[in-house]
Amino acid sequence: MKTTFGLFCVLFMAAFTLSAQEMSKDKYYKMMADSLVKSAMTEQRGFRSLGDLCKIGPRLSGSVNSLKAINWAVEKMKGLGLDSVWRQPVMVPHWERGKVESAVIVSSKKFKGKSLSIASLGGSIGTDLKNGIIAEVIEINSWVELNEKKNQVKDKIVFYNIPFDHSFPAAFPAYGKNVGYRFRGAAEAAKCGAKGMILRSISSRNDNVPHVGVMQYADSVPQIPAAAIGIQDADFLSESLKNDSKLKIQLKLSCKTLPDVQSYNVIGELKGTEFPDEVLVVGGHFDSWDKGDGAHDDAAGCMQSLEVLDLFKRLQMKPKRTIRCVFFINEENGSRGGIAYGKYADSSNEKHLTAIESDRGAFTPVGFLVDKDSASFIKISSWGKILERAGIHWVKQGGSGVDVSYIKNAKCLIGYVPDSQRYFDYHHSANDVFSEVNPREFELGSAAMAVLVFLIDWEGL
Amino acid sequence: MKTTFGLFCVLFMAAFTLSAQEMSKDKYYKMMADSLVKSAMTEQRGFRSLGDLCKIGPRLSGSVNSLKAINWAVEKMKGLGLDSVWRQPVMVPHWERGKVESAVIVSSKKFKGKSLSIASLGGSIGTDLKNGIIAEVIEINSWVELNEKKNQVKDKIVFYNIPFDHSFPAAFPAYGKNVGYRFRGAAEAAKCGAKGMILRSISSRNDNVPHVGVMQYADSVPQIPAAAIGIQDADFLSESLKNDSKLKIQLKLSCKTLPDVQSYNVIGELKGTEFPDEVLVVGGHFDSWDKGDGAHDDAAGCMQSLEVLDLFKRLQMKPKRTIRCVFFINEENGSRGGIAYGKYADSSNEKHLTAIESDRGAFTPVGFLVDKDSASFIKISSWGKILERAGIHWVKQGGSGVDVSYIKNAKCLIGYVPDSQRYFDYHHSANDVFSEVNPREFELGSAAMAVLVFLIDWEGL
Repeated sequence: MKTTFGLFCVLFMAAFTLSAQEMSKDKYYKMMADSLVKSAMTEQRGFRSLGDLCKIGPRLSGSVNSLKAINWAVEKMKGLGLDSVWRQPVMVPHWERGKVESAVIVSSKKFKGKSLSIASLGGSIGTDLKNGIIAEVIEINSWVELNEKKNQVKDKIVFYNIPFDHSFPAAFPAYGKNVGYRFRGAAEAAKCGAKGMILRSISSRNDNVPHVGVMQYADSVPQIPAAAIGIQDADFLSESLKNDSKLKIQLKLSCKTLPDVQSYNVIGELKGTEFPDEVLVVGGHFDSWDKGDGAHDDAAGCMQSLEVLDLFKRLQMKPKRTIRCVFFINEENGSRGGIAYGKYADSSNEKHLTAIESDRGAFTPVGFLVDKDSASFIKISSWGKILERAGIHWVKQGGSGVDVSYIKNAKCLIGYVPDSQRYFDYHHSANDVFSEVNPREFELGSAAMAVLVFLIDWEGL
Repeated sequence: MKTTFGLFCVLFMAAFTLSAQEMSKDKYYKMMADSLVKSAMTEQRGFRSLGDLCKIGPRLSGSVNSLKAINWAVEKMKGLGLDSVWRQPVMVPHWERGKVESAVIVSSKKFKGKSLSIASLGGSIGTDLKNGIIAEVIEINSWVELNEKKNQVKDKIVFYNIPFDHSFPAAFPAYGKNVGYRFRGAAEAAKCGAKGMILRSISSRNDNVPHVGVMQYADSVPQIPAAAIGIQDADFLSESLKNDSKLKIQLKLSCKTLPDVQSYNVIGELKGTEFPDEVLVVGGHFDSWDKGDGAHDDAAGCMQSLEVLDLFKRLQMKPKRTIRCVFFINEENGSRGGIAYGKYADSSNEKHLTAIESDRGAFTPVGFLVDKDSASFIKISSWGKILERAGIHWVKQGGSGVDVSYIKNAKCLIGYVPDSQRYFDYHHSANDVFSEVNPREFELGSAAMAVLVFLIDWEGL
């Protein structure tokens, strides 16, 4: 199937070159879009690569596993026959969870000995492992409440219990509403004298799996251990506190921060045949949290980006401009990879036309967010009917993505937006595994990105 | 939360009545849309009803279980406090799978004794249960090939092995391409003298679960037993036949068709306060295949429809027109429920303004298909920005749904269209269970339908 189809494309493109005047641009674009969709959806090569990558396991920055995966990625890119493949060195933070993370109710009459489902937040300090921290728990439901109860917090474990707000029709605003509690909740609690912090997981799924993510301490405030709790146990804890406000928890965490270590962005490209110094970046972040496989977040974005280049190879499309796939390291807890690539881009003689980021899970395509400039936005919007053939419903102005945002000199930055409904069922948790990725949803996303890259490559911006 | 919100709505609507001139229609519509989304997404009452319904199990027309579920539905509607609830009697076909369905390789050297994963197709005759049918297998990949090999088919089992065509960006066209083999494959094979038929499941998922569905015999052609096979076993069988074209299978099926039995559409409504004789129908089909729970197909469509009425109740919205929820029986193998309701609608003095069908799974909303008339289509399209708040990306002209299509006198018919990528992973198989329905996706669909019903009720068509 593949060979025949590849041959068809060669013939077709030759025919186009020969009789460009006879075929409308629109017709050609639609045919190319359909070819990209067909190849992605039927061959599912990117999806199989995703399976291979996920078999390696999670890829937290600085971990041995992340380096193993980086080596795999280099070999993978070479195996696809890209024109150049290289690693960009980046020093990354090295935080380790260790083997111990437990929260046990130790003083309640009814529930003494009950273990709660928790996981250390990324960047948290650990506790003494013999005795841990034993403290009463105070439930806090907002910053306002923390302020009101600041005199009751001393020596307690602050339990932020803010439910996921399902009222938003898209899921990201609900995450945005709560993520501040994860990021600076420990610091704010410590300012009031708390000994520890437990966060209701920012999760849209009604299970008991803790969802982790990065947190940060504040200067001149004591560092206290911080963990996420599964939402069923968060509900349980909240109920228990109503009957027993003196309930105590023993918290033990073995996590710790080690010195920064050497890591890498992984980069591969197809060299432009007409304008090799004009670069189109497609990428995702290669690191993940250390629960699950980091399949949706963001192995999928990386493998979709690589699939874009592989689709060009499979369809024997020679890009006019250089199409570069970047796997950014350390988005989750430092953005060092994005920062390093941004510095390189700023200082190189290349012209970055655009950078497209995929970091919202491998779900059905919905749209593209275009960040600066207006001319690019208008041009990309004009391709709506072509992009629609790969499932894209809209092109809007808006933020692109964390990693590409550091490419300051790019003409425009683009965020690929898939459906968000299920993203926070998986995000930063043991739920985020390969078996939860749907091949059609993943590959339609790859195709949507490939169609956009094809159009930008063909026309410029 | 709920009570407070309900109270807010009453106050808000009162405020609107008092100062309609002061508030733009657009603003009011957006606020009502957001209220419906919020109530559906946060309370998830429809989703919980779906869970309760699915606990009863599959609801194949004529089964004891379907009657149990019908009784549950009547009580459910009454419990929600609808103005009227009734059952419309419908005689339905009664096909039973029975306990036996097996396909065993009996003559191959290498694989003798291997059992294949199969399931009888709906409407198939059974076999003798002691000896079954023992026959060679001939693989057929298209109608053209069947015609070419028609002289080789006699006394064999025809094995239609047509893969799901993933090249379509939406999944329904792939289903449409293959469903003819399921529906008339046995009849066409029998014309050539075949003794049995096995169909590669029409499934988008790479597992071994057979996907069933209705098939039909042709008059004056012998009836032969027909079953679906899991796609992994279809691949296995195809490979095995390459090495052993004389391979024989023993097929045993206990399925049979019994006399028609009494069943019912279940109907509940909120009476219109201004135009009670103008009716807006929302509905799905209540019967399902007998594998899984029929959660996506179509318990979800029914529970979303009921959720529309319940949302009106919860937000204390009194509709101007009658909003009627119809659970159509027997869509899967006869459409008797749709036909019966259509006859009632044609003969009643009511004016059916519209009928909205949800029968494409409980996935994230995408659009609405509007079938006749143009004026309605233009009006509904003009609400795009309001519908967008419940996740609707487009309104297009096109086919609505099987059951509502029998309401000939409706001004317009509408099909609710969610994302299709995963639908055929579940469709007509044991995969279609409640745990595979995502509450956010389900409830955003309910909200999208509710917003459309609200707009049509408010403005008319």
